[in-house]
Amino acid sequence: MAREARAASGEDRLIGRFFRPLASDPGAFALIDDAATLTPPPGSDVVLKTDAVVGGVHFFADDPPELIAKKALRVNLSDLAAKGAAPAGFLLSLALPSGIGEDWLIAFAQGLGQDATDFRCPLLGGDTVRTPGPVTISIAAFGLLPHGTMVRRSGARAGDRIVVTGTIGDAALGLEVRRDEQTARRWRLDAHLRDHLIRRYQVPQPRNALAEALRQHASAAMDVSDGLAGDFAKLCAASGVAAEIEVARVPLSNAAGQAVAADASLIETVLTGGDDYEVVATVSPPAYDCLKAAAAAAGVPLTGIGLVAAGDPEVRFLDATGKPLLFKRTSFSHF
Amino acid sequence: MAREARAASGEDRLIGRFFRPLASDPGAFALIDDAATLTPPPGSDVVLKTDAVVGGVHFFADDPPELIAKKALRVNLSDLAAKGAAPAGFLLSLALPSGIGEDWLIAFAQGLGQDATDFRCPLLGGDTVRTPGPVTISIAAFGLLPHGTMVRRSGARAGDRIVVTGTIGDAALGLEVRRDEQTARRWRLDAHLRDHLIRRYQVPQPRNALAEALRQHASAAMDVSDGLAGDFAKLCAASGVAAEIEVARVPLSNAAGQAVAADASLIETVLTGGDDYEVVATVSPPAYDCLKAAAAAAGVPLTGIGLVAAGDPEVRFLDATGKPLLFKRTSFSHF
Repeated sequence: MAREARAASGEDRLIGRFFRPLASDPGAFALIDDAATLTPPPGSDVVLKTDAVVGGVHFFADDPPELIAKKALRVNLSDLAAKGAAPAGFLLSLALPSGIGEDWLIAFAQGLGQDATDFRCPLLGGDTVRTPGPVTISIAAFGLLPHGTMVRRSGARAGDRIVVTGTIGDAALGLEVRRDEQTARRWRLDAHLRDHLIRRYQVPQPRNALAEALRQHASAAMDVSDGLAGDFAKLCAASGVAAEIEVARVPLSNAAGQAVAADASLIETVLTGGDDYEVVATVSPPAYDCLKAAAAAAGVPLTGIGLVAAGDPEVRFLDATGKPLLFKRTSFSHF
Repeated sequence: MAREARAASGEDRLIGRFFRPLASDPGAFALIDDAATLTPPPGSDVVLKTDAVVGGVHFFADDPPELIAKKALRVNLSDLAAKGAAPAGFLLSLALPSGIGEDWLIAFAQGLGQDATDFRCPLLGGDTVRTPGPVTISIAAFGLLPHGTMVRRSGARAGDRIVVTGTIGDAALGLEVRRDEQTARRWRLDAHLRDHLIRRYQVPQPRNALAEALRQHASAAMDVSDGLAGDFAKLCAASGVAAEIEVARVPLSNAAGQAVAADASLIETVLTGGDDYEVVATVSPPAYDCLKAAAAAAGVPLTGIGLVAAGDPEVRFLDATGKPLLFKRTSFSHF
């Protein structure tokens, strides 16, 4: 009767071996049911987000699988952070080409599991399918916050300060360095600085540690995924405000600073290149010190870079002389 | 300042034109924020499900885009139905190759919007990315039900009846017909019967109309996506029970009946082929009449096909003489 009774398909065995160990949340039902459940505390909103990463588009096919997994989850965690939500879990939709082997899956699951634990965002369910295309990872992540308190893009007001977490531009520069190994030499980066940029491209650092403070103090926020210039322009458009950002105050890593020193035109890549997964937020003057203190307590670098102003939505990036920079394009877009 | 201020990237324009009209739910924030919100009624669980469909794997690249969209949503709605949940909304993750044009997107969005309306499952958010591979659509769908009442796979008990909605096997036969146009002639199907099978492959009919009745009366349920034999074996394994199904009672459409009459070996394709997206459920004898009556009231065909028994998990399919059928494989799996 073996043929009739066998309940485990190849997909089941794959899920059981690599992903069941990650699904410890009771709502995941150990991945043996068709769906998961999430039980929000009374008075909560569930914040819902999906972002996909595609091999050859968002990561290199030969990137370490554990880093691919972390990036796939972190680009979603980053949105939950910017919206002020605490992670509650995620669904994984994984399309695999036939060339993917066991070693790849072991490393992928290991990276995913580590982040699921570190960010307290358990795997709740998923789907695994074959594709004739590249590895495609679509994650839907869920966060929780008190009803009506999601930090929107639309709350910025004239007079608010503009703040950004971490450093900007590393990932876009890291992508250039990853693409062409001559680049690091041209920018006079040693191996350490080069690797810093590449790592920032491969594995973003989502700012979930700041989520609660953003929810309490920010008037508007979003994560920077497609470039600071273009993304903040979207926030200004949603809020119906203008803004001025002082380029000299935009925080750069040592590596990015050195690259820009070697080639001043790279400031455009820094400000428009994307993949930062830092948070840009606006905060009213009275709340600014509270947010700064909360960031310091959470160990998240936070830098004031400009001011929101009244007027038609536009973002002016001012150089050291007060002159606006003009960009060829303001943000990354595949379309 | 146009270059500095432009807030809309190509992706934003694509989303704004094709998908914003579908995002009428207030929690979708008109797709201009980074995330959506869902506010569950007090005492609710959110049921979470993701399923992906891939061009060349789950649909043909030249299938009508409106049907591809419907299938992508319906395979998820089908799970919500089987679990007893009322649809609350979905996130769309769409990976598009560069060859996809405006006409395709218009038709895709039209089909998706129609089903979102018909099934009261609004688009809440999404992500659109480029892929060098085929069109890949990953949907995460959300349902609501009272806390702790999700219909599990694990609740079947010895003595329960086994019921199935609609007809079984159409989609698997439809795939064969769609693959090779000689097939319909071999099976002596006229154009009408052939088209019925193909359409059942292209567009499943999820049984959301029965969700509430399943929640009230079923002891266990799941949707049939990878073949009745293999899927029900999973339910038996989760419940720790055995089962006997009378093959003669498994409901077939006229088209499937005619195909099996022409080639008796096709009964294996019918029972193991997958893509049915019907619900198979178990129900205790006292609740059977209630479920039957609710199905009749909802206009959902429901057929008793066998009985759950005590014993090691196995599913026996008995032919008209009471002899168990043996299958080459019990369910579809890509892995």
